[in-house]
Amino acid sequence: MTTEIMKSVDNINISTYIKVIGLFFLSYEITAQAQTDEDDAFMIKSFYEEALDRQLSYKWLHYLSENIGGRIAGSPQSLAAVEFTSQIMDSLGTDTVFRLPCKVNYWHRGDKEQARIVGNASIGTQELKCLALGGSGKTGPNGITAEVIEFKTLDELRASGDQVKGKIVFLSRPFENKHLRTFHAYGSAVDQRVFGPELASQMGAVACVIRSMTGRTDDWPHTGVTQFKDATNTIPAIALSTKGADILSQCLQAGPTRLYLKTSCENRGFKDSYSVIGEIKGTKFPDEIILVGGHLDSWDVGGGAHDDGAGCVHSLEVLYLFKLLGYKPLRTIRCVLFQNEENGLAGGTSYAAFSNANKEFHLAAIESDAGGFTPQGFGFDGDSKLLDRFKKVIPQWEELLGPYNIQFSPGGGGADIGPLKSQNGMLFGLRPDSQRYFDYHHTEQDRIDAVHPRELALGSAAMASLVFLIDKYGIR
Amino acid sequence: MTTEIMKSVDNINISTYIKVIGLFFLSYEITAQAQTDEDDAFMIKSFYEEALDRQLSYKWLHYLSENIGGRIAGSPQSLAAVEFTSQIMDSLGTDTVFRLPCKVNYWHRGDKEQARIVGNASIGTQELKCLALGGSGKTGPNGITAEVIEFKTLDELRASGDQVKGKIVFLSRPFENKHLRTFHAYGSAVDQRVFGPELASQMGAVACVIRSMTGRTDDWPHTGVTQFKDATNTIPAIALSTKGADILSQCLQAGPTRLYLKTSCENRGFKDSYSVIGEIKGTKFPDEIILVGGHLDSWDVGGGAHDDGAGCVHSLEVLYLFKLLGYKPLRTIRCVLFQNEENGLAGGTSYAAFSNANKEFHLAAIESDAGGFTPQGFGFDGDSKLLDRFKKVIPQWEELLGPYNIQFSPGGGGADIGPLKSQNGMLFGLRPDSQRYFDYHHTEQDRIDAVHPRELALGSAAMASLVFLIDKYGIR
Repeated sequence: MTTEIMKSVDNINISTYIKVIGLFFLSYEITAQAQTDEDDAFMIKSFYEEALDRQLSYKWLHYLSENIGGRIAGSPQSLAAVEFTSQIMDSLGTDTVFRLPCKVNYWHRGDKEQARIVGNASIGTQELKCLALGGSGKTGPNGITAEVIEFKTLDELRASGDQVKGKIVFLSRPFENKHLRTFHAYGSAVDQRVFGPELASQMGAVACVIRSMTGRTDDWPHTGVTQFKDATNTIPAIALSTKGADILSQCLQAGPTRLYLKTSCENRGFKDSYSVIGEIKGTKFPDEIILVGGHLDSWDVGGGAHDDGAGCVHSLEVLYLFKLLGYKPLRTIRCVLFQNEENGLAGGTSYAAFSNANKEFHLAAIESDAGGFTPQGFGFDGDSKLLDRFKKVIPQWEELLGPYNIQFSPGGGGADIGPLKSQNGMLFGLRPDSQRYFDYHHTEQDRIDAVHPRELALGSAAMASLVFLIDKYGIR
Repeated sequence: MTTEIMKSVDNINISTYIKVIGLFFLSYEITAQAQTDEDDAFMIKSFYEEALDRQLSYKWLHYLSENIGGRIAGSPQSLAAVEFTSQIMDSLGTDTVFRLPCKVNYWHRGDKEQARIVGNASIGTQELKCLALGGSGKTGPNGITAEVIEFKTLDELRASGDQVKGKIVFLSRPFENKHLRTFHAYGSAVDQRVFGPELASQMGAVACVIRSMTGRTDDWPHTGVTQFKDATNTIPAIALSTKGADILSQCLQAGPTRLYLKTSCENRGFKDSYSVIGEIKGTKFPDEIILVGGHLDSWDVGGGAHDDGAGCVHSLEVLYLFKLLGYKPLRTIRCVLFQNEENGLAGGTSYAAFSNANKEFHLAAIESDAGGFTPQGFGFDGDSKLLDRFKKVIPQWEELLGPYNIQFSPGGGGADIGPLKSQNGMLFGLRPDSQRYFDYHHTEQDRIDAVHPRELALGSAAMASLVFLIDKYGIR
C-alpha cells in the first residue's frame, strides 16, 4: 500500500505543476485536468481505505468515552479530555499543538435526581426516570411536592395566566417522527426544554418537567441545556423519559396528579478550561486556514460518544490521514477541539476572538457535531461571493464524492464555528445519517457501544476528502 | 393528514389527465409537467412521512423475527411465516393473495455443534464458538478429532496435494475492511465458505472449518450455505467466530494443533413450501407487472430480521402505502415473498417458471435483500433497450429522490428476481447502507434489536417511491 500511496503523491505534485503550466498552454490543460481528476479520486479512495482499515478514530473514541467518560465543561473529566487529546495531537507530528484558554461556568448535577408520582388516585406512587436539565436549580434536600399542569406548547402555557402559580408545569409535546431528518423533529420540540422552565418560573411555577427530546418511547431521559437569563429566577427543571412522560400524561387524564421532585444541582462558578488546537502549516498559502473541529465537552451523563466525541476524533483523524499519506497541504489545516459547546460556547467564542485578534482568515471551517453515523454530505454556508464560487464547483466535487454518498446542501455549519462567520469564509457541517442520533443524544446511552467503527471512520474520510479538495483547489 | 392526502390524490389524477391532453397542446405541457413534478414530490413525501410516522413495518418485523424466529425453508417456522405474511396481505385489501407452491430441501442443524482445541501444547483445551454450515454433513455422535492445517486461499489448498488427507482444513482469510461496501469484502472472502468444504472433501480432508464472514472481531459465528455438488462427498463444515479463528491461528503458529468437532446436522429431504404473493391490479396496463419482493426464509439461527425479514416487510409496506394513500396504479403492483433463497432458490425459480408459463411481463422487479438500514439508492440492470431508456430518466428521478439520499447505480437486482431477467424487463436492488450488515448476517444476532424502526421505514418509502415513478411514467 505504502508504495502505491507514495507514487500517487508524486503524481499529485507533478500534475499540480502541470496544471500551472497549462495556464500558458491551454490545449494541454484538458489532459492535465483529466490526470488531476484521477489523482483526486485516488487520494480520496486512500483516505477512505486507510480510515476503514485502521479504525483508529474508534480506538481514540473508546478511550474518550469509556475511560474518561462524560465531561461537562469545568469538570475534572473535561480537563482529562484536554490532556488526552493534546497527547494524541502531540503524537501526530503536526507543526503546532497548543491550548487556548477560556472560562467556563461549571454546572454540577449533584446527587441522582428523583421524580415520583405521589398523588394520583388511579396509580398511587410511581417513580419516573429523569435527569435534571443543565442550568436548572435545586429543590433543596426535602424536595418539592406540587400539583402538575400539562401543556403542549409554550403559547398554551403563556395563555394560562395565574393557573400555574405554585404548581409544576409539564411540557409534553412529542417529537414528530414524520420528519426525514430527526434534527427537524428536535428543532420543532426543543423550545420546551430551552425556554419552558424560565417561562414557567416567570409565571410562578415551582418547577418544570419536560418530555425528553427523542422520537423513541423508552426509559432513557435526555438532559440538555435550559436557559435562565436571570439567574435569580432559576427553578428545578427535569426531563422525564418518554415512557415516564406518557405515564404522567395518562395520570393527568385520569385526574389531578401530584409530583415529588428532588434535585441537588448547582452552579459551581467559573473555572479555567481550554480548547485544544493542532495544525499543519500550509506550504503555499499558510494564511488561508482550513479548520476541522468538534467539541470536546459533553454532558456529564454517558460518555459523550456521538455528542461530540465523534466530531473530535473525526477532526483528529483528518490530521492523521494527511500525515499518513504524506500529503503536504498548500493551505494551513487546523484542528480545533472546542470547549463548552453544550452550555456556554466559551470555546467557540474565545477561539473567534483569538483568531480575529491575530487577523487570521478561515477560508473554510468544517464542524462535525451531528454524530458518528454514516455521512450523507455537508451543509454549507458562507459569504455570498465565496458561496457563488463554491456552488460552481459543487458538481465537480460531487462527482468525486458521489461514490461515497456525499452530497452538498445549503445551510448550517455548527455552533462552535458560527462566530467565525464574520471572517467571510465558508462554513461546513458534516451531515451524518440522523436516524439514530436522538436515541442517544444527551443520555446515559451515548457510549461507545452506540458507535459503529466503520460508520465513524467514514466521517473522518469524508472530512479529509473535503479538506483535500478545498486545499488543492481553493474556493476564491 | 388524510384530507391533505385525498386532495393530493385528486390533483394527481387531474394532472395525469392534463398530461395526456398536453400531447395535443404542446405549449400547455410545460405547465402540466411542472404541476406533475410538484405532485410527484408530494406523493413521495407522503410515502416517507407515513412510513416514518407509523413504523408499521417494524411491528410486522418484530413478530416475524421474535415470535416466529429463524425460518429455514422446510422448517415449521417457515410455514408459520407463510401463514403470518398471508394474513397480513389479506388485511391490506389487495385484489389477490395467493401462495405459490415449491419443493424445498430441508437442512436441519440438529444439536448445538461443538468445536474444541484439544491438542495444542501452549493452550491445552479451548472451546470455540461455532455454527455448522448449511448443507454440511454430520460428524456422528462421537465427533471427529484430527490435526488442523491452515490455508488462506483455495489455491493454496489446491496446491497442498496429499497433505490434508485425514486432516481438518482451516480456511482463515479475513474480510478486507478497506472496502467501502461490505458486500465487496464479503464477495472477496466467501469463496472459502461456499467452495472450501467441497474442495477439502475432494482432497481427502475429514472436515473443514472456516473463519466467519464478517469484518468484526467478536464471538458470533456466521452460518451460511456451503455447496456439495455430489452429496456423497459431504463432510462436516463449521464456521468459527472471528475470535475463535484468531485463537486457532495463534495455536497453529505455536505448533501442531488438533481440533475436536461434533455436528449432527442432516438433510431431511424435500418438503412442501410456498412463496406468498399479493397484488394490486393495474387500471390501465394490468399486463405490465411491477414486482416488489424479499425472501421469506432465513437461516435457522437468530430471527432473520435483516436477512431478509426486512425485505419482506419493506415489500408488504409498499402495498400498504399505496392502499393508504388511495393511489390506484396504472400497472399491476405485485408483492412476492420468495421461499428458500438461502439454500436452494426454489421460490425464485418456481416463480419465474410460473410467470413465464402465464406469458407474463415484468416491466420491473425490485428486490430488497441487503438489510433494513438507511437506503442509499438502487442498483439497476436490465434489457439493453430498456436500460437506455431508463438511463435517460435517471437525472429527473434522482432530482425527486435526491432529498432522500437515493441514487441509482448500475448492477445488481437480487437472487430471487434473477430468473426473471429473461423477460427483458428492468431489475432493481435496494441498496441500504451496508456498514453494519455483516455484524448480523446469518448469526444469532440478526434479531429485531439490530433493526432501527426509522431506518427500516425509509426502505419501504424508497421502494414505494420507485414503484410510483415506474408506474406513473413507465420505462418503455
